[in-house]
Amino acid sequence: MRWTMPPDKVPEAWFNVVPSLVPPLDPPLHPGTRLPVGPDDLAPLFPMELIGQEVSSEPWIDVPGEVLDVLRLWRPTPLVRATRLEQALGTPARIYYKDESVSPAGSHKPNTAVPQAFYNKAEGIDRLATETGAGQWGSALAFAAALFAMECKVYMVRASYDQKPYRRMMIETWGGQVVPSPVADPSQPGSLGSAISDAVADAASRQGTHYALGSVLNHVLLHQTVIGLEAKEQLALAGEDLPDVVIGCCGGGSNLGGLTLPFVADAGVRLVAVEPSSCPTLTAGRFDYDFGDTVGLTPLLPMYTLGHEFVPPSIHAGGLRYHGDAPIISNLVKSGRMEAVAYPQAKVFEAAVHFARTQGTIPAPETSHAIRAVVDEALAAKEEGAERVILFGYSGHGLLDLSAYDDYRNDRLDG
Amino acid sequence: MRWTMPPDKVPEAWFNVVPSLVPPLDPPLHPGTRLPVGPDDLAPLFPMELIGQEVSSEPWIDVPGEVLDVLRLWRPTPLVRATRLEQALGTPARIYYKDESVSPAGSHKPNTAVPQAFYNKAEGIDRLATETGAGQWGSALAFAAALFAMECKVYMVRASYDQKPYRRMMIETWGGQVVPSPVADPSQPGSLGSAISDAVADAASRQGTHYALGSVLNHVLLHQTVIGLEAKEQLALAGEDLPDVVIGCCGGGSNLGGLTLPFVADAGVRLVAVEPSSCPTLTAGRFDYDFGDTVGLTPLLPMYTLGHEFVPPSIHAGGLRYHGDAPIISNLVKSGRMEAVAYPQAKVFEAAVHFARTQGTIPAPETSHAIRAVVDEALAAKEEGAERVILFGYSGHGLLDLSAYDDYRNDRLDG
Repeated sequence: MRWTMPPDKVPEAWFNVVPSLVPPLDPPLHPGTRLPVGPDDLAPLFPMELIGQEVSSEPWIDVPGEVLDVLRLWRPTPLVRATRLEQALGTPARIYYKDESVSPAGSHKPNTAVPQAFYNKAEGIDRLATETGAGQWGSALAFAAALFAMECKVYMVRASYDQKPYRRMMIETWGGQVVPSPVADPSQPGSLGSAISDAVADAASRQGTHYALGSVLNHVLLHQTVIGLEAKEQLALAGEDLPDVVIGCCGGGSNLGGLTLPFVADAGVRLVAVEPSSCPTLTAGRFDYDFGDTVGLTPLLPMYTLGHEFVPPSIHAGGLRYHGDAPIISNLVKSGRMEAVAYPQAKVFEAAVHFARTQGTIPAPETSHAIRAVVDEALAAKEEGAERVILFGYSGHGLLDLSAYDDYRNDRLDG
Repeated sequence: MRWTMPPDKVPEAWFNVVPSLVPPLDPPLHPGTRLPVGPDDLAPLFPMELIGQEVSSEPWIDVPGEVLDVLRLWRPTPLVRATRLEQALGTPARIYYKDESVSPAGSHKPNTAVPQAFYNKAEGIDRLATETGAGQWGSALAFAAALFAMECKVYMVRASYDQKPYRRMMIETWGGQVVPSPVADPSQPGSLGSAISDAVADAASRQGTHYALGSVLNHVLLHQTVIGLEAKEQLALAGEDLPDVVIGCCGGGSNLGGLTLPFVADAGVRLVAVEPSSCPTLTAGRFDYDFGDTVGLTPLLPMYTLGHEFVPPSIHAGGLRYHGDAPIISNLVKSGRMEAVAYPQAKVFEAAVHFARTQGTIPAPETSHAIRAVVDEALAAKEEGAERVILFGYSGHGLLDLSAYDDYRNDRLDG
């Protein structure tokens, strides 16, 4: 069962959870002065409109028409009931997922890449620089840049650049330029932290170039709330009231936030973050101010962190390999509004293969973390003999991650 | 702009063009006797229900409920108006495409894989054998087999098996078994013809195993007519009457037939087949009886053919590398109802990249042949200053073909 909606049902305003957070968010701090950063600190990197959204206290922010025009190329995304998975599990739970894999780049990332490209272009910027790990974010930004006729330079973690050429080719097909990072030292395999440093340095030093970040920041999570807003409307179409639990995988937190933030005010709805055991920021990190990057160029953010020098093992869920979490997500976990759970890779892929063989589609390794938690929730409901409505985020497809499945089948996974 | 329809709008009957063809189809012949083949000749390979569909004179054939249940996992597929491409071309033409890339296997192939698996299962068969070139058909059948809890053995052309591991991994993720073909001679790179021979030999020699073919035969094109039937309904939703021209790429002809057959009776609608210059069956082949495979195990089919020993160059559009064409398509071309045009690879990828940078999605190399013809139709309309409604088949995505785009950008294409 699948609930689609026509393009005119794409939400025309984003939901801003920040003004309703209790306790309120702590501000980002300047690393030198440890005073709150102001717009001037961010202006070399971001357009004023995004800086305004980052600190806005308005609960709703209008989506520009030009952004809606592009989002409507694939949105609203379908809400799907995973009936065949339910039957295979023999669970009384009703499992729904919001399918963000249908975007041109294959994940939720274009939801924020498009407005970020638009606002930059509107303020006269015609070139964007960014980093990418496995390539999900870099490809989303290259897609968005192509549609607004902008240049896009992607600093790609060298290990991925060398080993996973498909995302690079995708970026280049859209006209983006990809270089391996760290640029300064070709002998290094690189990391997301070092690639952020390269991209920030590029944007800070070049007139007409800005930087774009694909997760963590408030404005990124804001843009992703179209996911949860649409899902709420589609659940009503499916004849459901509120879900009992909403589940999403968490790297930086943008997919998770996009799905869950519109449910924060619904007190009876449990919110669950799922992360890898090998990068357990929410389940084993400390809540503290820390840098967003490895080198220490970014403001200090209040978040759960494993320390900005933590290098996660190279698990297949590249999008979940980040030492920290979005301040908004961290706030919700700290206050007890959101739960967090961690799983090792093999358990995650076991659930992913079960999903592929019942529902038919092959999920991304990141998405598969959410699926693992969903299966366990559905089995718990069966144990209790209790109905339960589960909503989860199908953040991306696994078509460029098939070697991960090959490793799983051949017992080559650890972590 | 995009027109979606709810799952209950999947057509509940397939359209069978065969009884309305003028002149009628010539029958397939037994290669030994050169007499028309009968059901008994085909029974070792196919279930009786499919054999019946192959020769049916009924204009409509009901889709079983169990098949509808699975098709509704992704159908109806969207009809999309390529507004951004129109604008980039400055054409007065209105360009629509039927997006079959949204299926779990990423192409139109599951439309027939699902009923083929179902009818076999219903007649007590629990194992299917088939061949695959680049892997589109093999992955579609493995997907369908997984959903009906059947075994699936795929003989994959060895060159693809060695060089393109992703489709093999996809098949294995769904639980299928893949072996390189020819099985008998590991020193050979193989061909589609030899892989058909391996698969047919497997099915003919094993109790409980049948063979499944992904194109060419009447029942395969029949199952694909859901594409054109849905498109007709969606064009009406879009406020269009009939299209002026319907365009599809042609390998064996199942995608092309699925889209165009429901328009055959609409006299004013032009139908256009697009094929590669390097495998020009319709534009440079002869109309004759020929074998479907290389070795000569299959019945003789009346079709345009380059000769069953013709080995096409290894262009990226693996799905268009076939020495013949479906008898139904051949009949339509021979009678003048359908036109055919051929393009070289570089022209095809030029159009594909233009599409990706305007519409956002990256098409399969096969699909890109149709896009090349669409662009030329749209430019002709511009030249004439004439409105024109163009419908084309977006048969699959290019996410597992990104190296083809890399070759295009780096001038490594020929043919």
